[in-house]
Amino acid sequence: MLNYRSVREQTLALTKGLSAEDMMLQSMADASPSKWHLAHTTWFFETFLLQPHLPGYQVFNPHFRYLFNSYYDAVGERHPRPQRGLLSRPGLNEVIDYRRYVDEKMDELLATLPTSLKPVLTIGLHHEMQHQELILTDIKHALSLNPYAEGLTSASAVKRHSVTDHGYTEFDGGLVDIGHAADNGSDDNFAYDCERPQHQVYNAPFALANQLVSNRQWLQFIKDGGYQRPELWLSEGWALSQQEQWQAPLYWFKKDNQWYQFSFRGRHPVILDEPVCHVSYYEADAYARYAGARLPTEAEWEQAATAQPAKAKAQGQFLTVDTAHHPAMPVQSGLQQLFGTLWEWTHSAFLPYPGFTPAQGALAEYNSKFMINQMVLRGGSCATPAAQIRSSYRNFFHPYQRWQFSGVRLAMTLDNEV
Amino acid sequence: MLNYRSVREQTLALTKGLSAEDMMLQSMADASPSKWHLAHTTWFFETFLLQPHLPGYQVFNPHFRYLFNSYYDAVGERHPRPQRGLLSRPGLNEVIDYRRYVDEKMDELLATLPTSLKPVLTIGLHHEMQHQELILTDIKHALSLNPYAEGLTSASAVKRHSVTDHGYTEFDGGLVDIGHAADNGSDDNFAYDCERPQHQVYNAPFALANQLVSNRQWLQFIKDGGYQRPELWLSEGWALSQQEQWQAPLYWFKKDNQWYQFSFRGRHPVILDEPVCHVSYYEADAYARYAGARLPTEAEWEQAATAQPAKAKAQGQFLTVDTAHHPAMPVQSGLQQLFGTLWEWTHSAFLPYPGFTPAQGALAEYNSKFMINQMVLRGGSCATPAAQIRSSYRNFFHPYQRWQFSGVRLAMTLDNEV
Amino acid sequence: MLNYRSVREQTLALTKGLSAEDMMLQSMADASPSKWHLAHTTWFFETFLLQPHLPGYQVFNPHFRYLFNSYYDAVGERHPRPQRGLLSRPGLNEVIDYRRYVDEKMDELLATLPTSLKPVLTIGLHHEMQHQELILTDIKHALSLNPYAEGLTSASAVKRHSVTDHGYTEFDGGLVDIGHAADNGSDDNFAYDCERPQHQVYNAPFALANQLVSNRQWLQFIKDGGYQRPELWLSEGWALSQQEQWQAPLYWFKKDNQWYQFSFRGRHPVILDEPVCHVSYYEADAYARYAGARLPTEAEWEQAATAQPAKAKAQGQFLTVDTAHHPAMPVQSGLQQLFGTLWEWTHSAFLPYPGFTPAQGALAEYNSKFMINQMVLRGGSCATPAAQIRSSYRNFFHPYQRWQFSGVRLAMTLDNEV
Amino acid sequence: MLNYRSVREQTLALTKGLSAEDMMLQSMADASPSKWHLAHTTWFFETFLLQPHLPGYQVFNPHFRYLFNSYYDAVGERHPRPQRGLLSRPGLNEVIDYRRYVDEKMDELLATLPTSLKPVLTIGLHHEMQHQELILTDIKHALSLNPYAEGLTSASAVKRHSVTDHGYTEFDGGLVDIGHAADNGSDDNFAYDCERPQHQVYNAPFALANQLVSNRQWLQFIKDGGYQRPELWLSEGWALSQQEQWQAPLYWFKKDNQWYQFSFRGRHPVILDEPVCHVSYYEADAYARYAGARLPTEAEWEQAATAQPAKAKAQGQFLTVDTAHHPAMPVQSGLQQLFGTLWEWTHSAFLPYPGFTPAQGALAEYNSKFMINQMVLRGGSCATPAAQIRSSYRNFFHPYQRWQFSGVRLAMTLDNEV
Repeated sequence: MLNYRSVREQTLALTKGLSAEDMMLQSMADASPSKWHLAHTTWFFETFLLQPHLPGYQVFNPHFRYLFNSYYDAVGERHPRPQRGLLSRPGLNEVIDYRRYVDEKMDELLATLPTSLKPVLTIGLHHEMQHQELILTDIKHALSLNPYAEGLTSASAVKRHSVTDHGYTEFDGGLVDIGHAADNGSDDNFAYDCERPQHQVYNAPFALANQLVSNRQWLQFIKDGGYQRPELWLSEGWALSQQEQWQAPLYWFKKDNQWYQFSFRGRHPVILDEPVCHVSYYEADAYARYAGARLPTEAEWEQAATAQPAKAKAQGQFLTVDTAHHPAMPVQSGLQQLFGTLWEWTHSAFLPYPGFTPAQGALAEYNSKFMINQMVLRGGSCATPAAQIRSSYRNFFHPYQRWQFSGVRLAMTLDNEV
Repeated sequence: MLNYRSVREQTLALTKGLSAEDMMLQSMADASPSKWHLAHTTWFFETFLLQPHLPGYQVFNPHFRYLFNSYYDAVGERHPRPQRGLLSRPGLNEVIDYRRYVDEKMDELLATLPTSLKPVLTIGLHHEMQHQELILTDIKHALSLNPYAEGLTSASAVKRHSVTDHGYTEFDGGLVDIGHAADNGSDDNFAYDCERPQHQVYNAPFALANQLVSNRQWLQFIKDGGYQRPELWLSEGWALSQQEQWQAPLYWFKKDNQWYQFSFRGRHPVILDEPVCHVSYYEADAYARYAGARLPTEAEWEQAATAQPAKAKAQGQFLTVDTAHHPAMPVQSGLQQLFGTLWEWTHSAFLPYPGFTPAQGALAEYNSKFMINQMVLRGGSCATPAAQIRSSYRNFFHPYQRWQFSGVRLAMTLDNEV
Repeated sequence: MLNYRSVREQTLALTKGLSAEDMMLQSMADASPSKWHLAHTTWFFETFLLQPHLPGYQVFNPHFRYLFNSYYDAVGERHPRPQRGLLSRPGLNEVIDYRRYVDEKMDELLATLPTSLKPVLTIGLHHEMQHQELILTDIKHALSLNPYAEGLTSASAVKRHSVTDHGYTEFDGGLVDIGHAADNGSDDNFAYDCERPQHQVYNAPFALANQLVSNRQWLQFIKDGGYQRPELWLSEGWALSQQEQWQAPLYWFKKDNQWYQFSFRGRHPVILDEPVCHVSYYEADAYARYAGARLPTEAEWEQAATAQPAKAKAQGQFLTVDTAHHPAMPVQSGLQQLFGTLWEWTHSAFLPYPGFTPAQGALAEYNSKFMINQMVLRGGSCATPAAQIRSSYRNFFHPYQRWQFSGVRLAMTLDNEV
Repeated sequence: MLNYRSVREQTLALTKGLSAEDMMLQSMADASPSKWHLAHTTWFFETFLLQPHLPGYQVFNPHFRYLFNSYYDAVGERHPRPQRGLLSRPGLNEVIDYRRYVDEKMDELLATLPTSLKPVLTIGLHHEMQHQELILTDIKHALSLNPYAEGLTSASAVKRHSVTDHGYTEFDGGLVDIGHAADNGSDDNFAYDCERPQHQVYNAPFALANQLVSNRQWLQFIKDGGYQRPELWLSEGWALSQQEQWQAPLYWFKKDNQWYQFSFRGRHPVILDEPVCHVSYYEADAYARYAGARLPTEAEWEQAATAQPAKAKAQGQFLTVDTAHHPAMPVQSGLQQLFGTLWEWTHSAFLPYPGFTPAQGALAEYNSKFMINQMVLRGGSCATPAAQIRSSYRNFFHPYQRWQFSGVRLAMTLDNEV
């Protein structure tokens, strides 16, 4: 079961090494400043637990209701998203005080928390874990734009191993249960509304690649003209790649005829035996076409993930303060990396499951109003807290977005005669 | 079986009443001038049949390869789409001559057409029928922007009848065959690549509304604040509707406190007993939420359509020169309007079916490179040639687009416990 | 004295060779369709003379007040400028009828025109001559975007002569009268409000180049890296040239390593002994810096022009139906080309003269509301009617605009010690 | 004579009360972060004095050459201006260290500074003073966008006095010397290149308003529909004011039917007896038209300013740490406020004087490449260091810009018959 204080402390721990100035940075409208994440996750507990349920609670600062609401129309007006980087005030110190204040009040509330409020607590902690990941993805993007910024972690030696042939694992398909079973109210069985209800889907026989696509393979794609051949691309992806002059994944750059990348280790040559990361759906899809394969559907992915032994998740590369952000390719054989390492683009649009009912109240806005124009990603990444991930978890981003820790797993239909 | 000359003559017939100047109009990048449609459909036969297969064929004008290519990268460079309205030259007369020239050469080729080319002929004719519809939708949009333009057809009397209660029809769901069976090469069994392969889908029990949503109902939605309530809308839809200041369907406008619409009849008060038309996916989805329902999936729609008697399609309101463009609501009971009347937005993204294989050659670009960010519409409209429609037909547009003849049919999941 | 019928016929004569479709073209918001120019100039006479002053006058079409108002707020709302190309209706035939109708009514009015209205008639005719020039500049721009459009005139042989050294003519400067003397109400003494009042300006001693800069010289500028050297450019000009990727004047393009241009003769190699045309202020200014010179001020230009003999203007290259659009360099010595050939960019901003008073009524909007962000051009071009030009005439365009017939004359300050 | 250490300390003193986070803010591309100003002014001395002239000088950080170059093409590539707010690194502490390091090295250099370098030192100090003013204008804009930011100074009591009639002062005009006399190399006679050479201008007789337009008068303009009447505005100004929905000067807002403003005192009701501030050229020009007057030309302004007694400047409201930013209207009679209080928009475009020669080397870029599309402002403001101002000083901004301390003085031509 999730521990309130542990989750909260983990969030702060992630900002170790960042200055108050770093934590102001907002490098694009899609991203938010670290300071804003610290405040917004706190606002969530204040707004949905303390204000309605702790008798006599006094808000820390009445302006924060406006400043740190992300997108909840039901809560009221809010500060424009693209201007979050302009909030020098409150300063970081005040936001830290805000966290401390809310944490102390939460201790009071938690001491006598009625069972009926446990689901809100749970969602608040999962929400905070989502923002832990965003703190990392957003600061990575911001620092990458500073031509002389160094990385955040030491440039630890990377084990270099050679992957010879990773192959595919086959599945029979059939009528399978997809989605999370009905929530029983305990936080051990937590799932977002969009993962429910569990329902039947018919999968045709399919195969999943055992490993994610590597940087080595991606370099070959580049050498083979992958970014110059329109026939490999979706039409909108091609237009965007031309307009933005994509030649490689985000954070890659060429110097003296060699490919480098910006990572939390700083700027360094691309490491061939790492999985390719920070690619858009458009690139993932183009690569699959190039490779004579396709991306998996989310139902295929979930069928495969559900069939894994429990230890598969336990062995996944997830967020920890020390080992984070350096995903590596496995040396074992068989289906690998389903949990953690990188988010895997699927071929499925983020749409409601049959019989979907949104959460009630303001939290109805949590997922359901974003069910258009986005594709599902599965599995979690090295920047994802392990406690957040389960085989039914549906992450979603627009096909053009690249700043998440997103990678590529190939799939194939085994038999296209019905 | 489709007749080449009939299809071609129908295209020209649709431009009756349009001047050479009207046929220059391009009112937005999504739309094309009528003259361009006349030339592009001709270019299709010239490029994919006459040039490769008619011995000694001389192209009508070598520049047309560039000017009238729509989006086929495999054919080469092409004129920028947003500048199609700047092609005063070739003039309409020259384009008419081009059509005549190609038609005569096609007569030669058709006299001895080998079986292996029949599929290309068939796709060319279906392609032309798609553009017949676009001629209508595009000129409607263009003329609507001329504040004093009159309509194209006489303002025939509209039968005014009152629809009391149209109700729903229930379906059991289950494992159903979706998609078009394998193409046998005859044009009687034509389908686009994206409709194949036939495959199994599991539908949960569902119900479909017997009729499309009417203008009368839509007016109630407006009166109930449908365009002012963010909780009814997808987030991106709400942002767009605010930005574009949507208050009603496209072509509606308010004068002296009454709603009018622009149609092929000109400008006139909204006719309450017609189905609501020219709504985006965002509006259709918001209306469904308002009505406590949802949009159908394409598999649900196809299951229902496949179950209809053959006469259902025969009775549909499709494109004919005289009766076109004035869709009306039926007075009968039971499931109505599945074929024709209006395109029906579904809740399904336009993505490849399991085992999908694109057509070969340049025609691979026909559908598959558009499989992102678009939603499927089903059934055809009063601007669609009947010969083009079958229960497996998948039309697709972006969620923001409104200038097609698109309407709304509601659906419900009957049992959301699996 | 200007003849109403002659001016009007000249306007129509300029559209000889254009189809109704050509006359629909609007290739950018700065330009208007030829048909719109035909209608707008007619609207001017209808609005400012016939409606207020011809008893019993019935407007030709009440919608035209809205459709063909250019920018007169005092006349009321108007059709959005960027949508002028969407007016397929009224058709060209109806616009021709409109012209004929207004011309007949004008005959009636002119028969008894009171003296007090003569200034309005005069301004209407000068206004029409300004639009004659715009018909040419706008259609040239539109046709240039059609990759296969031919020219409008025959490719007459161009006399090729070699200009060896054209030199400068010096002026003493001093306190000079600038601007047009008070209007005496006759149309022989016509001037726009912005040319008045006549006032004193002190010119330091200066010199003007005897001839315009030629294409030959401009090619040398290109070869010397003129478009790649930021130190030659104004900062905003450099930014724009980079963004728009300017490498040469508008309408020039490179093929097989040779420079071509689009002109009314069609597409042909750049003719070295023609004056360079279709350059922006930014380019003109950069060239002057490259040449160690500067552009003239408008007061310098006017001092020089006033000193010319009357025949200088009579010999100028102005608009005539036959010889138009092919400006050539003179072979004579001495100060040449001040009148006609090309508009000459000056170093002066378009601002009011001391004591300026705008025209009264709606015509106050004619010039004065544009007195910001524009630079003055002087002298007229081969597309300008001769009757429109006088030494005090102030034309004005934004520094980025290139589609007018604009060229470059250099100047120098002779003595910069005061 | 300017003292290096005093000027440098004044710059730092201005940031008292700002946090490191505040000093990161960049609220629009026109503005820069305070931290950037601190670094850039230091870079100026390092680049133009220490590197070329102090033997053995080691740069503080080699990346700063790129990061803190503003716009000098001759110095090389530079960080994109709109991304200055993304430079969390170097942190404020490092920038302070940079200043200290450069100041110490400058002490070394100054000890033996050859006469030939004194002009560069002087321009560096004047440059720094320009940025002192920008620190204030830029941070004011940034903080105004934080809905809950407080001011920077205490809300000192404002003397409320009533101005009854301020009237005009008349000038004869005539041939006058305008511009700064030749530079003699001493910093007591400093002027920018754009103020030279001195030259003759003929002014017609004119009158200048004795005082700036007040907030009281501006409120009357608002009440009289000044922001709703297109006939008062330049065409481009009107379009912009509509698009941006201007209803009042920048930093004004309406609450409970009263006008408030954001100032360094925080948010408070508009003070009627202060001069109106933060208006664009478009607004200044529209007000003048409304008032039946016009803006002065820069030659008129300079003629008047040159005629003032020396104490006029000494009494001006200029930047001082304590009294800054609260301009007040004078109670005296006669011509007031020419020096300090607010920058005064003139009717003159920023163009080179006759015989203008840019400064040599990289400093040629200081002024001359901006001589287009900008209007001249004269006199200095309450945010301008007094040492920076002289009667020949030419400030320049685009007509749309409002974030400088810019106000309005009216003028009239006394006799428009020459």
